[in-house]
Parts: sequence; C-alpha cells; structure tokens
Amino acid sequence: MRIALLQHACSDDCNTNVAKTADMVRNAAAHGAQLIVTQELFATRYFPQTKDDSHFALAEPVPGPTSTMLCALAKELAVHLAGSLFERCPSGAFHNTSILIAPNGRIVGQYRKMHIPDDPGFYEKHYFTPGQAPHVVHTDTGVVGLQICYDQWFPEAARLTALRGAQVIVYPTAIGWCAHEDATDRARQLDAWQTIQRAHAIASGVFIAAVNRVGVEDDLTFWGGSFVADPFGVIIAQAGEKDEQVLIADCDLSRIDQARQTWPLLRDRRAQTYADLTR
Amino acid sequence: MRIALLQHACSDDCNTNVAKTADMVRNAAAHGAQLIVTQELFATRYFPQTKDDSHFALAEPVPGPTSTMLCALAKELAVHLAGSLFERCPSGAFHNTSILIAPNGRIVGQYRKMHIPDDPGFYEKHYFTPGQAPHVVHTDTGVVGLQICYDQWFPEAARLTALRGAQVIVYPTAIGWCAHEDATDRARQLDAWQTIQRAHAIASGVFIAAVNRVGVEDDLTFWGGSFVADPFGVIIAQAGEKDEQVLIADCDLSRIDQARQTWPLLRDRRAQTYADLTR
Repeated sequence: MRIALLQHACSDDCNTNVAKTADMVRNAAAHGAQLIVTQELFATRYFPQTKDDSHFALAEPVPGPTSTMLCALAKELAVHLAGSLFERCPSGAFHNTSILIAPNGRIVGQYRKMHIPDDPGFYEKHYFTPGQAPHVVHTDTGVVGLQICYDQWFPEAARLTALRGAQVIVYPTAIGWCAHEDATDRARQLDAWQTIQRAHAIASGVFIAAVNRVGVEDDLTFWGGSFVADPFGVIIAQAGEKDEQVLIADCDLSRIDQARQTWPLLRDRRAQTYADLTR
Repeated sequence: MRIALLQHACSDDCNTNVAKTADMVRNAAAHGAQLIVTQELFATRYFPQTKDDSHFALAEPVPGPTSTMLCALAKELAVHLAGSLFERCPSGAFHNTSILIAPNGRIVGQYRKMHIPDDPGFYEKHYFTPGQAPHVVHTDTGVVGLQICYDQWFPEAARLTALRGAQVIVYPTAIGWCAHEDATDRARQLDAWQTIQRAHAIASGVFIAAVNRVGVEDDLTFWGGSFVADPFGVIIAQAGEKDEQVLIADCDLSRIDQARQTWPLLRDRRAQTYADLTR
C-alpha cells in the first residue's frame, strides 16, 4: 500500500488551504499513492489555540462543502482519501472528525476524535464533543484505522484500533511548540511524540502514519516531522520540521504478519486481567 | 530516590551468581542506593532457553534460601531490595516472581510475572504459571511497581501498574539476541525494547527501570543496556551492552507531578470506552 501524507502550513484563508490540499492530493496521486491522508483540520488555521465562540462558524456538516470537494477529488483520482474536518452535527454537537473516502467517491468511514486535549494553546475541549470508539475501514488495499492527533498519546486507543483489525493507523495531527519553550523542551517533545507512536507500532505490529502541519500560527510553531513507522517501530519515511511536503511511503502489509509471528505479542495479551483499565 | 540496577553475567554455578549479586548489592548500598534491583532470575543461567524438566529443581519457595539471603542483606544494609526468583508454590505451580524486601528485612511485596513468552530461546510457558495482577508497594522513599521482563512489551501492564500508584516501575529482565540474528536485527530489537518502555514512561508519567543481564549463554547473547527513563521518557542512566555494572540513577519523584501536569494524559483517558481491551 503506497500512502501519502500531506504536510503543509495553513493561512487565514480557508479557500487557499483547501486549494493547497487539493493540489497536494493530485501530486500524491500522480506519485501512485493509494491512500492519501490530510493533516488535522487542514482547511483552517489551528483555531483551538484560543477559546473563541466565533470559531464555531468554521464547522460544517458531513456531507458538506469540504467533504463533497474531497469526495469529488477521490473519485476523479481513484484514490482513498482520509480528510480531517471540524464537523457540525445535526444533534448540535461539534466534533473533530476524520472521514475516509473510497475511490468511488463515497464516504466509507467516519471517526470522531476520542481524546480531547485542553492545555495552553490546545483548548479543544471548548469545541469538540469526544467520540466513543475507534473506527476501522476495510478497503481493497488494506485495513485503515482512523485516529486523530491527541489519540496518539494513548496506548489504549492504538491497541483498540489494532484489535479491530487495522493494518495502518493514521493520525492527522496539529502539534507544535509554544513560543516560550526552549530548545531542550522542544527536542524532548518531538522525540516523545515520535517514541510513543513508534511504540504503538511495536506493541501491536501495525503501521503508524502521523501527519502534522508546519508553520507558525500565533503562539504555536507546528513541528512537522510527519512520519510512517513499520510494524517493528522503524521509521520508513519522515518529513522535515519546516517544509511543506507530500511524504510518500510504501507499506508492505506482509510485514505485519512477519512482525506478529516473530514477536507474537498479541498472542500473549492477558485481556482478562485488564479490567481495571476500564475503571 | 536513588536506585541501583545490577547488570551482570551468570555462570552455571548458582552460588557464584548469588555471591556476585550480593557483592553488587553491597557496592550499590555503598553508593547510597535506596532501591536496588536485580536482573531477572539472577541466581541461575537463563534456563528457559530450553525445555528441560530437570530445571524445575532450580525453583525454591518464598521464603526460601535465596529470599532469606536477600532479606538478611537488605536488613544489614538498610535498603529496599527487589529480587527476581524462580518460585515453587505450595500449590504445585511454578512462577517467575519478584519480591520486594524492606530495609527491616521483611518481604513487603511479591509479584508473579503476568505475561509469559514462548519463543525460540525463551520457552517460559514450559515453566511458569502466569500471575494475575501487577503489584505495587508503598515504601517510605516512593511507590514501586513490580513487573518482569516480557511484561515490558505490554502497554496495558505498565498502565495498570501506574494506575495503582507506581512512581517507579522496575523490570528485572533477561533478553538477548539469538545467534542467527544479524546486526540490523539486533540493533532494531534493542531499539524496540528501549522504545516501548520509554513510551510507558511517557504515557503514564512514571520512571521506568529495566535491568538486563549480559554475557553469552549457549545460543543467546544478552544485550545488557539496563536503563532508567524519566517520566517524559528521557533516559537518565544507561549501562553498556557487554559490561557488568552497578547502574546508579537518581529519580527526582517530583518530576512525576511536573510531567503529569504539563502533559495531563492521565486526566484525558477515556476509560469507559476501553472495554474491548478486556475481551
């Protein structure tokens, strides 16, 4: 499975962001990508940096204008496309949502971010109602697990996604440094971010793909570094910290069984002893 | 909390191994260690490399000769001592067990390895009945979580141990390379071993201490590399791959709260959505 991760900066103008993403999707498809993944909330600047009720106007339904554009693009290019959106539900709730679109242009998966941060620069609890379960989509090129950004810090979430059959877990992401953080803190945060996701790959024998944005938006410097890790946690493709990039990686899915048979960790889970994880 | 990890090779002679460990415990105490941790099954060669019923004769009860010696040593030196043993239970079952001994010489914690491997060179399922829960001990210098070797590959186990209040999770370990594995495989395995344990530290904001043996025993080359990681996954002490060493690390337990308040991941777990982890 050839996957492509779209790492870019975002401006104040949604139309420009969406057009840039569309260009990058075309670029990725031209390079033979079968699964193309956007960064988190690619259509906008990272608005949860502040609590501002006017930002709710950025949300849209699914289907809605952005998802319809993505569906048309996936169909035109005959690719699987995972897109991240600020979703407004008919129920009145708002979600941080990923959709997976099939090459026929239909939405075949929809996932609402389960873990919601609420820290300086990342006030997502102000906006998003959390989702209730990981979502896994069986496609004709592989099984895709949908997770989003902050989910990446929770081994339980990656494990649940893998147990549902995911072969590649994708994490559209928007993570960066606050202006006051020094070089040591910055290096440690980027390393921790990469380490914990590589560990998910190792623990469950799955591919992991994280897609982060770049650029400075107010107080935040997004650290890019989008990467793909193989089922033993080895990074097989990685983008830089500053550059916009269509990052391509070829995931040989046969390596999943190979990893799981050499290190049969899933065999040896003691699920009946894990009840306290749910309390 | 100053901790010491005892990394060494083992011979065929149990008395020699025990005497070597005792010397290292004295050395660690002389360096001010408050918690001293042996490697896994330090009294013997790593006998699960083969399935051989004669090895059951190596097991002993708790209390028994080795635990009694460790208790006397802990009392004499007024240290906490975590020792790994092949335990024979009155029930007839055999366990891969760690005990924690207080400075008064009493056994205050006993943990039986939950996750049991059964792979080439590591035929532990032939010997050990798995334990049912992590064990956490409140000491006057900090809260110690007892885990053993293969447990280190299971994020669930580390999380359960942290949720029970552990501040430092210790992993007596015996892990190495099989003779047929090439340099690339070896480097990846050591890196994966370190990565997944550093991720436990990051996910739960705890110190992690892994104590591995060194030396060649038949088909296995134990890779040493004992280390301590801080609550953000940064390695603060690390031993070499070949040398015997008393590895000392000072764990500033105030860094746990600091990590958990900067990255409040425990706050944001969605425990009620994790039920499928127990199935």
